[in-house]
Amino acid sequence: MTAPQDPILLTPGPLTTSRRTKEAMLSDYGSRDMRFIEMNRRVRAMLLDVAHARDTHVAVPLQGSGTFAVEAMLGTLVPRDGHVLVPANGAYCQRIARILGVLGRRATRIDYPEEQPVRAEDVARALEREPSISHVALVHCETSTGMLNPLAEVAGAVAARGRGLLVDAMSSFGALEIDAPRVPFDALVAASGKCLEGPPGMGFALVRRGVLERCAGNAHSLVLDLHDQWTSMEKNAQWRFTPPTHVLAALHAALEQFAAEGGQPARGARYRRNCEALVAGMTRLGFRLFLEPRHQAPIIVTFHAPGDPGYRFQEFYDRVRERGYVLYPGKLTQVDTLRVGCIGHVDERTMQAAVQAIGETVREMGITRLAPEKAAA
Amino acid sequence: MTAPQDPILLTPGPLTTSRRTKEAMLSDYGSRDMRFIEMNRRVRAMLLDVAHARDTHVAVPLQGSGTFAVEAMLGTLVPRDGHVLVPANGAYCQRIARILGVLGRRATRIDYPEEQPVRAEDVARALEREPSISHVALVHCETSTGMLNPLAEVAGAVAARGRGLLVDAMSSFGALEIDAPRVPFDALVAASGKCLEGPPGMGFALVRRGVLERCAGNAHSLVLDLHDQWTSMEKNAQWRFTPPTHVLAALHAALEQFAAEGGQPARGARYRRNCEALVAGMTRLGFRLFLEPRHQAPIIVTFHAPGDPGYRFQEFYDRVRERGYVLYPGKLTQVDTLRVGCIGHVDERTMQAAVQAIGETVREMGITRLAPEKAAA
Repeated sequence: MTAPQDPILLTPGPLTTSRRTKEAMLSDYGSRDMRFIEMNRRVRAMLLDVAHARDTHVAVPLQGSGTFAVEAMLGTLVPRDGHVLVPANGAYCQRIARILGVLGRRATRIDYPEEQPVRAEDVARALEREPSISHVALVHCETSTGMLNPLAEVAGAVAARGRGLLVDAMSSFGALEIDAPRVPFDALVAASGKCLEGPPGMGFALVRRGVLERCAGNAHSLVLDLHDQWTSMEKNAQWRFTPPTHVLAALHAALEQFAAEGGQPARGARYRRNCEALVAGMTRLGFRLFLEPRHQAPIIVTFHAPGDPGYRFQEFYDRVRERGYVLYPGKLTQVDTLRVGCIGHVDERTMQAAVQAIGETVREMGITRLAPEKAAA
Repeated sequence: MTAPQDPILLTPGPLTTSRRTKEAMLSDYGSRDMRFIEMNRRVRAMLLDVAHARDTHVAVPLQGSGTFAVEAMLGTLVPRDGHVLVPANGAYCQRIARILGVLGRRATRIDYPEEQPVRAEDVARALEREPSISHVALVHCETSTGMLNPLAEVAGAVAARGRGLLVDAMSSFGALEIDAPRVPFDALVAASGKCLEGPPGMGFALVRRGVLERCAGNAHSLVLDLHDQWTSMEKNAQWRFTPPTHVLAALHAALEQFAAEGGQPARGARYRRNCEALVAGMTRLGFRLFLEPRHQAPIIVTFHAPGDPGYRFQEFYDRVRERGYVLYPGKLTQVDTLRVGCIGHVDERTMQAAVQAIGETVREMGITRLAPEKAAA
């Protein structure tokens, strides 16, 4: 019944979750029953607490993956005649721009190379140059590289110029500090299956109450309308449409464990230890980091693919997988890379064991040149 | 660790699921790992088999609740200048019309009283009168009453006039026969947490391959674009955005149990026995059916609320709940009703025990007049 053969997931999600979190899914809940309603109320309150946002924001859970929450945030918060500035240094920033295109909302990008963080001064300059820009959409941790973007600085630049900040905190929420009283944002989205260590299946938005109140009728969609989802939930404490009851129960259990661990500071510290153990071990093997260490979030780490002619990602992946660890492919267009996550119900011993499995695989495949080929383009 | 105290859910979903189905959620799956990819492939094939649609249709799973799948079907299949006929005899038909409104797609309703089924001849007449109508959207079983609409007849009328049929089969799929070779439809949607007896958290669409191929660019949304979801999944066998891995694993287990039970004929027969046991028992207690028996689907049954002045739904619900059964409120605007589901991992003994609990509650509350008040309006 248990699954001791499950490999450890070293990916940006779905993650390895605790046994207790998964066992919360062994109950069936009626979605309009008091037991579920109370659990949902607690989850919403705990989500606000993660960002110290209980006085200013409301938590709106939403069915679907994190991208559903991103699209819902953009569609609900940005009016049809809005204009969104998208500083872009990776695939998830680009996805925001793509969604805005599908929704027919005006978007302006500031493009950066994938190895460079967004710069707050560029955002400030763009806001001053273009008064029509109503919102800035920022990805906090760009999962395609592991890049940490300077949320606090960008938030300050946006607030100082009276615009709204929309944050994709998918892979940072719960692990990195996001302090709503000091870092002003209109809305932030994340999901159950990331650093809160729940299963995937629902996202959520923290939205400034006074802003959300003015968002009726903005949305391009019924199911992705966060204003309607919120007002309906405020009325009867229920979800508008069938919630993923088992996923919510597991997220509730995961949030209790999150609090017991010591909340965001403790969660972030564990992930930093994981990241340090990973980077130290991989560097010792000869792998090279893609990002400068100072830009690296302790969430997911991008390494250059070995330059050895005998290296093929799929074979490498399969052999590490046989040893019990699931890695992640790279997501960069210009450079051949691979990614290893530091998040989930794992600790630095797990990371050391994973590095050992990777080292054995490297030797087994006869890979001697770990340094990358000269950049291809 | 098990939850023997879980009440039995006699609702339209989420349902009581089997222990084996829930235990499938005790594993964490990497969404890009071969083990998950293979499971996803099997689920998609099994879903097509339920409707004998493997030769004609493709199965496109989608994150979110059933309504997400409904909106995705409408947004993807109906072009921006399309025109949808919506025969409407309940809340879920009305929801389709509401979604079309939000999406800016033209809709024409044929309104029926909630106790009357849709009539194929009305659909035929409307299609002949209005050549601009491109699609008909039909709810197979209207969950707000339990009404069974005549899918085969409507499908015939639509096909004979060269229009596309879009079916909301949310609460019928898996329980009632839907035979794609005989009942032509362009698309049909349902969800994991209904008669397939999985947990809630994902929907799916069965779409005629040749139709879906022509739907690129229709959708109003990135995440709800079934064409993009499908073409992307065909390319690499993966979901575009993080799938609800645990829910899919449980649906996979539920589909294996569905096949072992004998597929749709056996599932439907069990639900009919459940429905008969429920209706016989409730009628014996003095409750009155809202629908004529010939229009009643064996999915969820609407009863008139007792006319007794001592009856209050919430107290009645709470007392039945204490005895271990979760009922469902009515959803009709004109008449006071309550609903009891016949679906989920339950059999006729469960239904008899539920009726006994309801009978005890009626006596405990001193309710003597079970017949409804004269219709209020």
